[in-house]
Amino acid sequence: MKELRAKLNDIAKRRGIFWNSYDIYGGVGGFYDYGPVGSLMKKNLLDIWLEEFVYKDGLFLIDAPAIGPEIVYRASGHLEKFTDYMVRCKSCGHAFRTDELIKDYVEFPDALSPEEIEKVIREHGIVCPDCGGALGEVEEFHLMFSTRIGLDKIGFLRPETAQGIFVNFPTLYRINREKLPMGVAQIGRGYRNEISPRQGVIRQREFQMAEIELFVDPEDKFNEDMIEDYSLPLLTMNGENIKISAKEAYKSGLVNGYILYYMVKIMKFMERIGVDTSKVRFRQHHREELAHYSKDTWDCEVLISRGWVEVLGISYRGAYDLEHHMRYSGVDMRAFRKFKEPKKVRRSRVIPRMEILGPMFKGNAMKIAQQMEEIEIEGEKKELKIEVNGKTYEVPPEAYDVVDEEVTLSGERFIPHVVEPSFGIDRILYSILEHSFYEREDSGYKVLRIKPEIAAIKAGVFPLMAKEGMDSKAREIMKILRERGINAYYDESGSIGRRYARADEIGVPFCITVDYQTLKDSTVTIRERDSTEQKRISITDLPDTLDSLIKGKLEFSEI
Amino acid sequence: MKELRAKLNDIAKRRGIFWNSYDIYGGVGGFYDYGPVGSLMKKNLLDIWLEEFVYKDGLFLIDAPAIGPEIVYRASGHLEKFTDYMVRCKSCGHAFRTDELIKDYVEFPDALSPEEIEKVIREHGIVCPDCGGALGEVEEFHLMFSTRIGLDKIGFLRPETAQGIFVNFPTLYRINREKLPMGVAQIGRGYRNEISPRQGVIRQREFQMAEIELFVDPEDKFNEDMIEDYSLPLLTMNGENIKISAKEAYKSGLVNGYILYYMVKIMKFMERIGVDTSKVRFRQHHREELAHYSKDTWDCEVLISRGWVEVLGISYRGAYDLEHHMRYSGVDMRAFRKFKEPKKVRRSRVIPRMEILGPMFKGNAMKIAQQMEEIEIEGEKKELKIEVNGKTYEVPPEAYDVVDEEVTLSGERFIPHVVEPSFGIDRILYSILEHSFYEREDSGYKVLRIKPEIAAIKAGVFPLMAKEGMDSKAREIMKILRERGINAYYDESGSIGRRYARADEIGVPFCITVDYQTLKDSTVTIRERDSTEQKRISITDLPDTLDSLIKGKLEFSEI
Repeated sequence: MKELRAKLNDIAKRRGIFWNSYDIYGGVGGFYDYGPVGSLMKKNLLDIWLEEFVYKDGLFLIDAPAIGPEIVYRASGHLEKFTDYMVRCKSCGHAFRTDELIKDYVEFPDALSPEEIEKVIREHGIVCPDCGGALGEVEEFHLMFSTRIGLDKIGFLRPETAQGIFVNFPTLYRINREKLPMGVAQIGRGYRNEISPRQGVIRQREFQMAEIELFVDPEDKFNEDMIEDYSLPLLTMNGENIKISAKEAYKSGLVNGYILYYMVKIMKFMERIGVDTSKVRFRQHHREELAHYSKDTWDCEVLISRGWVEVLGISYRGAYDLEHHMRYSGVDMRAFRKFKEPKKVRRSRVIPRMEILGPMFKGNAMKIAQQMEEIEIEGEKKELKIEVNGKTYEVPPEAYDVVDEEVTLSGERFIPHVVEPSFGIDRILYSILEHSFYEREDSGYKVLRIKPEIAAIKAGVFPLMAKEGMDSKAREIMKILRERGINAYYDESGSIGRRYARADEIGVPFCITVDYQTLKDSTVTIRERDSTEQKRISITDLPDTLDSLIKGKLEFSEI
Repeated sequence: MKELRAKLNDIAKRRGIFWNSYDIYGGVGGFYDYGPVGSLMKKNLLDIWLEEFVYKDGLFLIDAPAIGPEIVYRASGHLEKFTDYMVRCKSCGHAFRTDELIKDYVEFPDALSPEEIEKVIREHGIVCPDCGGALGEVEEFHLMFSTRIGLDKIGFLRPETAQGIFVNFPTLYRINREKLPMGVAQIGRGYRNEISPRQGVIRQREFQMAEIELFVDPEDKFNEDMIEDYSLPLLTMNGENIKISAKEAYKSGLVNGYILYYMVKIMKFMERIGVDTSKVRFRQHHREELAHYSKDTWDCEVLISRGWVEVLGISYRGAYDLEHHMRYSGVDMRAFRKFKEPKKVRRSRVIPRMEILGPMFKGNAMKIAQQMEEIEIEGEKKELKIEVNGKTYEVPPEAYDVVDEEVTLSGERFIPHVVEPSFGIDRILYSILEHSFYEREDSGYKVLRIKPEIAAIKAGVFPLMAKEGMDSKAREIMKILRERGINAYYDESGSIGRRYARADEIGVPFCITVDYQTLKDSTVTIRERDSTEQKRISITDLPDTLDSLIKGKLEFSEI
């Protein structure tokens, strides 16, 4: 399996799929460049993602900055909890994540305290993997990249694009005319300052994410019709590997309905983009593994040369994020749920006295007043504690009045729950590469069996020989294809066999050859990558035929 | 003009085009979110950019990280030179860019030294714009966001995507089979830690770039046929406003050929995306304005409510960047130029003695040896100074031999020159919004006359009334359109007039209405945004017709 990786990495660097960034300066761990071939594959992959998950479902797409102010990540819990433990080697000074070091000895390495980790290291005599030296004490290491905004405001690079969606919930909910469920998607880079990333494109410090936050009313009845009858490969929290129909999994209560909806969509997506679905499973997190914000998480794992690797996760984040941002910002992050019948209730309402609050709290007075209005007073008036922007303000009793009133309520406000499918695009792309790699039995030539939709370049156009007008004809055809939006290239160098082999290596699905017959009857040969079969077709029909082949509307055998 | 901005900002926030980021926390200056409408407009704009500048010209597209190690920005000159001057107010503490403060008094505020700036402030009695307080001393302020990679490596967020291309020149040149010209494009975020950004989306700290680095051989004769006969609006260095044909401008030597090639492409691009080309000009930089890497720069400026604003620049960067990265990395960044005839020359060649260099320089020995081989020795052997990764190494005479030889050279190595069109996508998008805004003469309703290709949503589908099956029919049509890849939405709320007005406000070009006649004969009305004309069309024809209208293949009057 290591050999497969070596072969793939060789093609990746040599042919422009990806390579370690800044290699003229010796490279920097955890950073990768996508080359001319890889960047287009990624673009095609993201466009299909948008089509399947955003456009078809009518979700919102937003685009927020990667840099965020400290308060956002204090509220989200990342500032406090988004850390790894590490140890440094006492002789060579290299640093290592402890979970990587001890993962062969304990089941949930992430769940241990520093003392427990040190105990495992001691008991198993674990030493530095690089030099065999003794390891030092366990230290905490923060995974967010920090920076400074302007002169002195602390900022962080987002570890997930999700927070850029959560902080905008009130605005988005209003734009959606206060309707739920509301799905909001975002595509963008995520950043995690890993200690010592050593797994190629699988573990990057700057990576491509595509995330969806689906805001739902937890009291709404889930519409069972959303779930198709599709057989899902699950690995449950109890370690059971099962194949179960999505409908069954819903009825038995094993998996949340929205999570199941996405599981089915994801399986179909994987099929469309060319991940081998027999090597895909959904693994439920154990309680000990769950991220600080999650109530239930199912990872979608793909089997590659490094074993089962998480390529995306579906988390039930509940009300966690909105609740926290509401508390830290003092802004109402709730949605409104209408009662079937209006309700009459008696209540004691707080009426803020702005003439006192204004001078007392200045710029924060409005936010404080808004929160005070939500409070119900029972018994005596007393000092109120109000949290705004992460600070607690003490409001004296004279700063408000209390009225006792009967009101008719048409509904109530509540914090929506969130279901989050979060995709690691680099890992999905890498899975496609591994699953599509093979060597021809006869020649040993390497081929990437990439789906035409994902392939960076759709067609190579070759003159049989670069003379007698075959070259200019081939260039002309290339231009026609490009004008039609079909990414084509021209190649006249080496034998036709070599040119086919070069095309196969980066997954070009179709090669067009201009030969002597072309000059007579305006037909060309079109050769399919995997079958290596060839057909003859008129130049006039070529753009339409290729377009249909790429979009999967036509099989090569039907030409 | 301020009123136009206020109206646009209102629509932008209310309808989901853009808004200041993190507004629940009071907002952070210089950061903006694109909402559901703005993010799709940006995506459409970038797709057209890719089509026009990358696919049609067969350029490479790459995708490099935003974080880079210190040495990259030391080599590029940004570490030393990418700074602004600022002053702080002595009373309120607010900070200001000095060029903004003094721009009304001097012609090239960026060209002054701190002493000269202080003199201008003193002479004109400039005080704090916020509180009228006295201003302190001029300080230097670095515009790059810095961070830490891993435990202790200094890193920066790229101020331009360009460096991610330059550092990859050797790899890309090899992938391109050592041919020039070679164009490489990249789309991504750029980062500049502005002191006090106050111009909305026009001056952001995190912004969307799209850049091209065109590597050329400066000795290649420029192919004049690349330049179309197109009339260009130029504002030359001497302050002259001229209209001149591109061919003329080339022949007179006024503008570099490649820059002209891009000027023409850019004018056509602006027209396609809906920027009013009568409000576009190319302004040549004065010597004093040029960035540290540039020999000649033409900004493309667009006239908006804030005056003429730079939305992109075309710079002739010469050999600057590759030369610097070659010096700092010790890696050969040159291209190869074949002679017409092989040349015979005598020369003294350095032959490194690896048995001495190896132990002496360890990991750097190979790079040092490679550079030594490029040196020609005249006279005595002596100590050589070799620069690798920004450090200078002293190589003693005994570490190499010299042979005198006659060699036949087939060509020579040289550093390619770079022409760089660099697009500020946020500013272009904002220009589109301003240029497409108008109010209907009769009703005063606001409309965005956005080109259908750029519009976020292509069609609204409305039932005349939400009953008698018109609602379900309309939903069905919406689904058909979405399946066809046409972004459509359903709206049943309010009068048809109100629904049209809501659609107009975010530039939806076409509205489909399902009425009683639809239920009888399966036709719908289609209404065009700007003319407000309506036609009746069968549902069967609708997807094709809409598709052609959006792509500009069909005029509404032709239906």
